[in-house]
Amino acid sequence: MPGPVELQGKKYPAKQHAQKVRGHFLTTVRGQTEGSASFFLSGENLKLHPYSDENQVMRQNRYFYYLSGVNIPGSHVLYDLKADKSTLFLPEIDLEEVMWTGMPMSIEEAQKTFDVDEIVYVSEMETRVVAAKAHGKIFTTDVNEWNQHLAQHLTPGDKDFFLALDESRLLKDDYELALMRHAAAITDNSHLAVMSALPVEKNEGHIHAEFIYHSMRQGSKHQSYSPVCCAGPHASTLHYIINDADIVDQKTVLIDAGAEWSNYASDVTRCFPVDGHWTKEHLEIYEAVLDMQSQTMALIKPGVSWDDLHLLAHRVLIQHFLKLGIFKAEFSEQQLFDSGVSDAFFPHGLGHLLGMDTHDVGGRPNSEDPHPKLKGLRLRRTLQAGMVLTDEPGIYFSPFLLEDTLKEDGEMIKYINRDVVDKYWYIGGVRIEDDLLITETGYENFTKITKDPKEISKIVLDGIAKGRGGFHCIV
Amino acid sequence: MPGPVELQGKKYPAKQHAQKVRGHFLTTVRGQTEGSASFFLSGENLKLHPYSDENQVMRQNRYFYYLSGVNIPGSHVLYDLKADKSTLFLPEIDLEEVMWTGMPMSIEEAQKTFDVDEIVYVSEMETRVVAAKAHGKIFTTDVNEWNQHLAQHLTPGDKDFFLALDESRLLKDDYELALMRHAAAITDNSHLAVMSALPVEKNEGHIHAEFIYHSMRQGSKHQSYSPVCCAGPHASTLHYIINDADIVDQKTVLIDAGAEWSNYASDVTRCFPVDGHWTKEHLEIYEAVLDMQSQTMALIKPGVSWDDLHLLAHRVLIQHFLKLGIFKAEFSEQQLFDSGVSDAFFPHGLGHLLGMDTHDVGGRPNSEDPHPKLKGLRLRRTLQAGMVLTDEPGIYFSPFLLEDTLKEDGEMIKYINRDVVDKYWYIGGVRIEDDLLITETGYENFTKITKDPKEISKIVLDGIAKGRGGFHCIV
Repeated sequence: MPGPVELQGKKYPAKQHAQKVRGHFLTTVRGQTEGSASFFLSGENLKLHPYSDENQVMRQNRYFYYLSGVNIPGSHVLYDLKADKSTLFLPEIDLEEVMWTGMPMSIEEAQKTFDVDEIVYVSEMETRVVAAKAHGKIFTTDVNEWNQHLAQHLTPGDKDFFLALDESRLLKDDYELALMRHAAAITDNSHLAVMSALPVEKNEGHIHAEFIYHSMRQGSKHQSYSPVCCAGPHASTLHYIINDADIVDQKTVLIDAGAEWSNYASDVTRCFPVDGHWTKEHLEIYEAVLDMQSQTMALIKPGVSWDDLHLLAHRVLIQHFLKLGIFKAEFSEQQLFDSGVSDAFFPHGLGHLLGMDTHDVGGRPNSEDPHPKLKGLRLRRTLQAGMVLTDEPGIYFSPFLLEDTLKEDGEMIKYINRDVVDKYWYIGGVRIEDDLLITETGYENFTKITKDPKEISKIVLDGIAKGRGGFHCIV
Repeated sequence: MPGPVELQGKKYPAKQHAQKVRGHFLTTVRGQTEGSASFFLSGENLKLHPYSDENQVMRQNRYFYYLSGVNIPGSHVLYDLKADKSTLFLPEIDLEEVMWTGMPMSIEEAQKTFDVDEIVYVSEMETRVVAAKAHGKIFTTDVNEWNQHLAQHLTPGDKDFFLALDESRLLKDDYELALMRHAAAITDNSHLAVMSALPVEKNEGHIHAEFIYHSMRQGSKHQSYSPVCCAGPHASTLHYIINDADIVDQKTVLIDAGAEWSNYASDVTRCFPVDGHWTKEHLEIYEAVLDMQSQTMALIKPGVSWDDLHLLAHRVLIQHFLKLGIFKAEFSEQQLFDSGVSDAFFPHGLGHLLGMDTHDVGGRPNSEDPHPKLKGLRLRRTLQAGMVLTDEPGIYFSPFLLEDTLKEDGEMIKYINRDVVDKYWYIGGVRIEDDLLITETGYENFTKITKDPKEISKIVLDGIAKGRGGFHCIV
């Protein structure tokens, strides 16, 4: 199915990407000492499941795709830094395979499709690699099963090469942004369909099916990650992917799911009441999370530290918990912040970079950081225009996570009104997650599906009123 | 979601399977010389995609599942042949993981769930393996990344062990058959949904989405294989899985898709006209294929050679092609059969064993067979009660496959009325595929979705008449 209209007739800018990586590698990172080097990357190939003739699902190597724009299994790319020349190697046509899988793309079609200087078959690869080796090192991410036979010519795992790749991927170009907006739009429609179809959704698995169906209908064959579809207390497990319990006796739903488009991700979470009517407690927590997101989002622009926004989200949570009586009013916001008592209610980071990977490269996390609120944060940088990230605060009532916090003889229980906490277990948790592009002046929100609790309520109720969930094919 | 009612409260018979494999290994295959040996198998574990923190889809190792019934990643099983004792090793609980993925099954729950004699954590595995080694060899399929540390104790790749495993899996027991009937029923509903939803299906991808949606709604999270959803000429590519072309200008659809249930496969193909009305040529080919299937199916019972049925299917094709004028009437059926002219129209085998694998083990194919019609056949055995197999004849009009056959200066063209062949290209191909259990007296057909062309026409037309394809949630 066709992708974004604005990209029709345009090629994925693989050559520009190669030049960008070269720029980072030679200027910022390595100096000019490797000016005659080359980059070499191998794409993924088809692979059978053990003792089976069924192929595993192939997920293209993101570094390879960045420098090639190619999804054909068994391809490789070589980029000569000095000559500024990229060569794509495509697998030979296997005539035995054609009756099963069809005729592969010809070299001529490939030339029209891909932004590389030259395309030849893999049979010519070794000669080309040897020739490139004659004038400089050939940097690659790793020697693997697809390029093992060239190992002697390759320089794998160079940290500066990785850094140059990751810094290049950090700031998205217009082509990449168009792909990401398209993925986000598919995801919006799929979330809307899920919210609209409650009467036919009696099980978490039905919600999962609904989301996948609408993503696939719009041409997204793969999800960016395993969808999290949960009802009630299951929402307190952050990456719950069992998606198989009945929802009819539950009040709350959390769905964290994002379609992929051309290897680019979206990542969106929405929560709603099963019957369309927010319970008092569900709405209280929902509005706290929405406030955590709104207040952090309002500050987003280049130059802002993501650490600061993450810590702000904790402060907003604490303010709401004081108001709700979950935290005892005798303590100040600062005392509560310093105590760490909010950490088990909001145990993950405020957000992460998004790109070809759902948790995209370049975030510079530091799991050794002694700061308990920051060691799990996946993005530890100052914001720059061109970054895409998620803003996804959450509040959870997880018996497992709160076990220490609620221990009668523990350190934390003095901050907490236990009888108030007990009113919230049935919710499980609330997370609200949008995908944002950092712009020169602030941000562009790719995620358009509503998060207004009244509008959500209306969508769910409309679906219920139309019987069969108002199931409709949005595209 | 719940599985077959008749299996509620029953355990997957892993212990019986171990005993069955032991029986084949000691009695039929190896004699009693290895009576003090053990079997050891490692299940699959979670694995990240390269340079990503997203897990690959885990497909359980079928041999491991057969001897354990366990889908928990990172498990292993040891079976002591003399003591007749099976020990399941489960991975230790990783507390860091629990907030993300939830609490894993406890040993106590596992004891209630799995049919093994003892369950302990993986930390005890090496001690147990060493103890077993003290009284005999420990046979395993292979040393792999999950059991590398035990390599010195293991005897991998023994042919007799594989033979014993495959002969055991060849004949399904009642529990396995119940799982397979359940998978087949999910598949029936999903095919019916696809046939019923034409007005919302404008693209092969919509058909794909429809099938997946209905399988998932019924609790089948995985397909047995990548669905083949094609319209028009694409149906001539046997394993076409691109599933992304418009169908509005096409006349014909072929969908080959099967849901999986508890690691057991179904595998069903149906064809129908896009607008509900069979064209003359489409129906002619459909009836020829149906006849190939009916005539071969009528002969199915224990003792029959699958080779013979495959060759019979070619004869039925030839009879129809003579009647349709595709083959020249001046040649006899035998001349045409001997010439090989039918081979490129029906280039695959009549069927294959079905079980945990779509192309299940134990079929004894022989790709070195000089017989051109038999070398690609995946089942080369005499039928036995308890085998499950597909009966799936097909006729294709593939420009690629027929290139040699239709060459003006080739050997085959003399048998063919080229102008008649040219009327059929737009169909692409027709395949009809059902899943059959061989019984003592014949067979049981697991596949209930109709293949009667009039009924199919009615289903498609009813769907169209109901607008929006009569889209309905069947379960």
